[in-house]
Amino acid sequence: MPSLRVALCQVNPTVGDLAGNAAIVIEQTAAAAALGAHLAVFPEMVVTGYPAEDLVLRKSFVDASLATLADLATRLDPAGPAVVVGYLDRCPVSAPRVGRPAGEPQDAAAMIQGGRVVATYAKHHLPNYGVFDEFRYFVPGDRLPVVRLGGVDIAMVVCEDLWQDGGPIAVAKAAGVGLIVVPNASPYERSKDDTRLELVRRRAAEAGVPLIYTNQVGGQDELVFDGDSMAVAASGEVLARANQFDRELLLVDVDVAAASSELVGEVDAQDGTTMTVERITLDDELHVPDDQLERRVIDRLDDCAEVWGALVTGTRDYIEKNHFDSVVLGLSGGIDSALVATIARDAIGADRVHVVGMPSRYSSDGSVADAAELARRQGLHWSVLPIAPMVEAYEKAFGETAAGGLHGLAEENLQARVRGTSLMALSNEVGHLVLTTGNKSELATGFSTLYGDSAGGYAPIKDVPKTLVWALSRWRNEVARAAGEVEPIPVAIIDKPPSAELAPGQLDSDRLPDYTELDEVIDRYVEQDKGHDELVALGYPAELVERVIRLVDAAEYKRRQYPPGPKITPKNFGRDRRLPITNAWREGRDTKFPRTSA
Amino acid sequence: MPSLRVALCQVNPTVGDLAGNAAIVIEQTAAAAALGAHLAVFPEMVVTGYPAEDLVLRKSFVDASLATLADLATRLDPAGPAVVVGYLDRCPVSAPRVGRPAGEPQDAAAMIQGGRVVATYAKHHLPNYGVFDEFRYFVPGDRLPVVRLGGVDIAMVVCEDLWQDGGPIAVAKAAGVGLIVVPNASPYERSKDDTRLELVRRRAAEAGVPLIYTNQVGGQDELVFDGDSMAVAASGEVLARANQFDRELLLVDVDVAAASSELVGEVDAQDGTTMTVERITLDDELHVPDDQLERRVIDRLDDCAEVWGALVTGTRDYIEKNHFDSVVLGLSGGIDSALVATIARDAIGADRVHVVGMPSRYSSDGSVADAAELARRQGLHWSVLPIAPMVEAYEKAFGETAAGGLHGLAEENLQARVRGTSLMALSNEVGHLVLTTGNKSELATGFSTLYGDSAGGYAPIKDVPKTLVWALSRWRNEVARAAGEVEPIPVAIIDKPPSAELAPGQLDSDRLPDYTELDEVIDRYVEQDKGHDELVALGYPAELVERVIRLVDAAEYKRRQYPPGPKITPKNFGRDRRLPITNAWREGRDTKFPRTSA
Repeated sequence: MPSLRVALCQVNPTVGDLAGNAAIVIEQTAAAAALGAHLAVFPEMVVTGYPAEDLVLRKSFVDASLATLADLATRLDPAGPAVVVGYLDRCPVSAPRVGRPAGEPQDAAAMIQGGRVVATYAKHHLPNYGVFDEFRYFVPGDRLPVVRLGGVDIAMVVCEDLWQDGGPIAVAKAAGVGLIVVPNASPYERSKDDTRLELVRRRAAEAGVPLIYTNQVGGQDELVFDGDSMAVAASGEVLARANQFDRELLLVDVDVAAASSELVGEVDAQDGTTMTVERITLDDELHVPDDQLERRVIDRLDDCAEVWGALVTGTRDYIEKNHFDSVVLGLSGGIDSALVATIARDAIGADRVHVVGMPSRYSSDGSVADAAELARRQGLHWSVLPIAPMVEAYEKAFGETAAGGLHGLAEENLQARVRGTSLMALSNEVGHLVLTTGNKSELATGFSTLYGDSAGGYAPIKDVPKTLVWALSRWRNEVARAAGEVEPIPVAIIDKPPSAELAPGQLDSDRLPDYTELDEVIDRYVEQDKGHDELVALGYPAELVERVIRLVDAAEYKRRQYPPGPKITPKNFGRDRRLPITNAWREGRDTKFPRTSA
Repeated sequence: MPSLRVALCQVNPTVGDLAGNAAIVIEQTAAAAALGAHLAVFPEMVVTGYPAEDLVLRKSFVDASLATLADLATRLDPAGPAVVVGYLDRCPVSAPRVGRPAGEPQDAAAMIQGGRVVATYAKHHLPNYGVFDEFRYFVPGDRLPVVRLGGVDIAMVVCEDLWQDGGPIAVAKAAGVGLIVVPNASPYERSKDDTRLELVRRRAAEAGVPLIYTNQVGGQDELVFDGDSMAVAASGEVLARANQFDRELLLVDVDVAAASSELVGEVDAQDGTTMTVERITLDDELHVPDDQLERRVIDRLDDCAEVWGALVTGTRDYIEKNHFDSVVLGLSGGIDSALVATIARDAIGADRVHVVGMPSRYSSDGSVADAAELARRQGLHWSVLPIAPMVEAYEKAFGETAAGGLHGLAEENLQARVRGTSLMALSNEVGHLVLTTGNKSELATGFSTLYGDSAGGYAPIKDVPKTLVWALSRWRNEVARAAGEVEPIPVAIIDKPPSAELAPGQLDSDRLPDYTELDEVIDRYVEQDKGHDELVALGYPAELVERVIRLVDAAEYKRRQYPPGPKITPKNFGRDRRLPITNAWREGRDTKFPRTSA
């Protein structure tokens, strides 16, 4: 049977670095050529990086994408493999039109071969849900070019084209193609790799041909791309599967059927639209190999390892792609900052991680000692800055005002803000990126101080619920034990009852429900969007449900001013969940009138 | 000629307050009935408030909208006028489908008459650009019900249906309707009222019938709705026009043609889709009035008055709808905080506005005196909190660390953060909302301190360029002079050279280009999305263009943590302009490779 050797180029492009991204394509293509590849497939919008957000609406940016693509065609070895790259294109259109994105950009894929662009395709299905806003950015495509290469008909489709029913997969089947290649930029969320494999299998089976799925890796603000590139046969058999989170050049020999159809023109796309099939013939010569490459199918990571990979990748790429030499964070002796320090160390190495103990009059000696011990074990830069002098200066100043001093919450928040200001001062003085240490349960309930512990440039665990913070800490220690290394997180930090230590003897449990219960309700209210009555029907006590809803709703304004951090759940705060601040909706309240009019 | 008396109900609903919004509809309908109205038209989504963002994806919220609509039908006087209200509906659909919003919500309008809902229409054109994300939220409608009321055929369309070509206006014409009514939620931006009038005229002419346009008023987070409701004849004549920014019940007698078509079924919508025309007959009896109401056509405000209306409305509604009793802000003696104080006073009255002078060692005596004078003139609550003791406490503490103290920018930012922390302490102690005083030129260039002067809950002038800050200040003083009142802003504040006073003798001009030039380049780069080469081609010096672009790009992370504030320009930072933080794109840099690969 004829066969094609395909390189899945799982790379880490940077948004906006077009020259750098093109250099990656050239380098990887050369490596693929050396391994005998006929075809190299790169991720979606690899030329520009993804998501480029409103940059795609700027004429100069689209121009640069097109210029870079043209340049790539001239610089790639004309005798090398055919190369499929994602890039930013535009529709050939005259006047601006209300309702269409400015400049009519398209999320496109090009095949380059023999020194020129031989075919281009524009994504047909645009995701506009969750973290995606592609109707804002792109005009959908309605053409399917079929390229005959090595005697095999190949169709390119892009990412979301797999996820929605009908469209180019249906048209590719009607056109009788022998192989479908798919550039992707599919962000990580927990357990998504299983969904993805099932999806790829289903579409390969629908089309009746092998499917090549190349995803990018790396972090981009809140999104982490996890790779997991794969080649799947029409039978559903996994022919190759790349690692998660790391760059990889994965080669696979794929058995393919020789071209047999010549269909062109309009085809019903079975999604309410039609698409036009076009034909491009490069060469008819079938490749029948002497032997096949050994198959490489990497096992998936377990849940904690996968989340860890996402947190470390997201944090590392935010630091590196924004050119920070070092990070600083406050180390309280609690588990959240301990975990963030460990993530930072795994991401960029101990020598670039600075941790500061900032004890107040309420901090226990144990907390400072635990923090120091963690820093010692991990080899982090440790320093201590007691905050009492600054706190006292404020207290004295406010004691002389009409307010007569600061009390209760105002005094607690003051401590947090003195710490936030101190970290920012270090950042300004030395150039560190400040890492924020809040977890998702805290962010959900507003259990944090604006400009205090929420201050910083990146928040590695903002999408990690507190119960998972514990699980990850234990898991990371186990990994170290298994490797014969010292546990990075002192067990005293993991085992102590959680406290913000902002008042004498204070515990989180004074103010919040038990974290196990809390995280369950947050998951159902925030991630699953269940209403009050549905939550009560699930068996949660009405009092708990009302309390959690009240806390979550009231904290919206705080979340808006929180730094970005890596998304790991199906719905993060930020790109994924977008609620008004001004919001009178109260779940479970009787909405019946009469009520007084406004 | 037959005529209908129509009430344009320009009201101020609150997002999420369904019972309160319904009460407004009942109260206004009763008032319209007393004035002899046959038909009362309310804004888009008046039942739920607009934009309700991700609330529309929650089942409980859609359920509540439907229950409130049903309730409204039973509570409105069955003998009263027919009532058109916007509400949140859903498609009758079974299973979730990838690519469609959860629960399949629709942005709908209902006509209620005689105690029941007689017709419903779902918005056909969904805006998904600028501040709008409606493909995330809604399934487009494809039915056009035509209701015969008083012998006249009436079609309802919603907001964006006017802005895009083809669709329900074309179908309404084909169906031979005699009147089109349009609930809207159209946010303010400078000079949009002219655009809107031209648009309404064009659509009325296209359809050949009068058009009733009802918009809401009020603030919702970053958006301000400016009313400007109107009735326009097919000839383009303005029959009635409401005020801007205030609630109004505007009655107009509209000459209408008697019903003459019975067309039903599928019609080409001239936008690539078809829509289905349905017919509902309520009554055939034509109204021929003895006399007509006098026409009320309010003049438009001039540019400064209009912007002022937007700033005051946005600020007032954020405060009131979020239930703050009072606000606090730092009054530096500079023009930005002076203007914000004046906006706050106009919004909620002097007695609810607290202003604090927080002089540092670098503050001039004149600054504090000017601030005090402004507070005195406006009757605001004034207090002074010198920041030197707190700043010194930090300096002493940092002097004892390895950093050896704080220098340059770190020291300047420290002062700003001590002020931010002090305002937040007052907020926590007393319950004030903190107002942030930064302007758009500052936000654009990053000329502000994160957690310092950028701290706060609402930022009234964040979308006001510095040059407009001056113009508004002068204009507001002139308004006062014309009314024989004392000028609210001391002229010394307006005339002094701008300075943040964070270092001895510091002026803004040390670090920023001249504001007139700066604001021009910001307008073209930020609002018009011009690239480096286009800006240079417009005649701006390359050095200036590069400097502004560099500043704007580098400040993206700061803007993400900035509080919301009212949008007044065609493109605000926030909902309107969405750029990645991690962004290697540099306008004007040669993007050609070879470059080193990442």
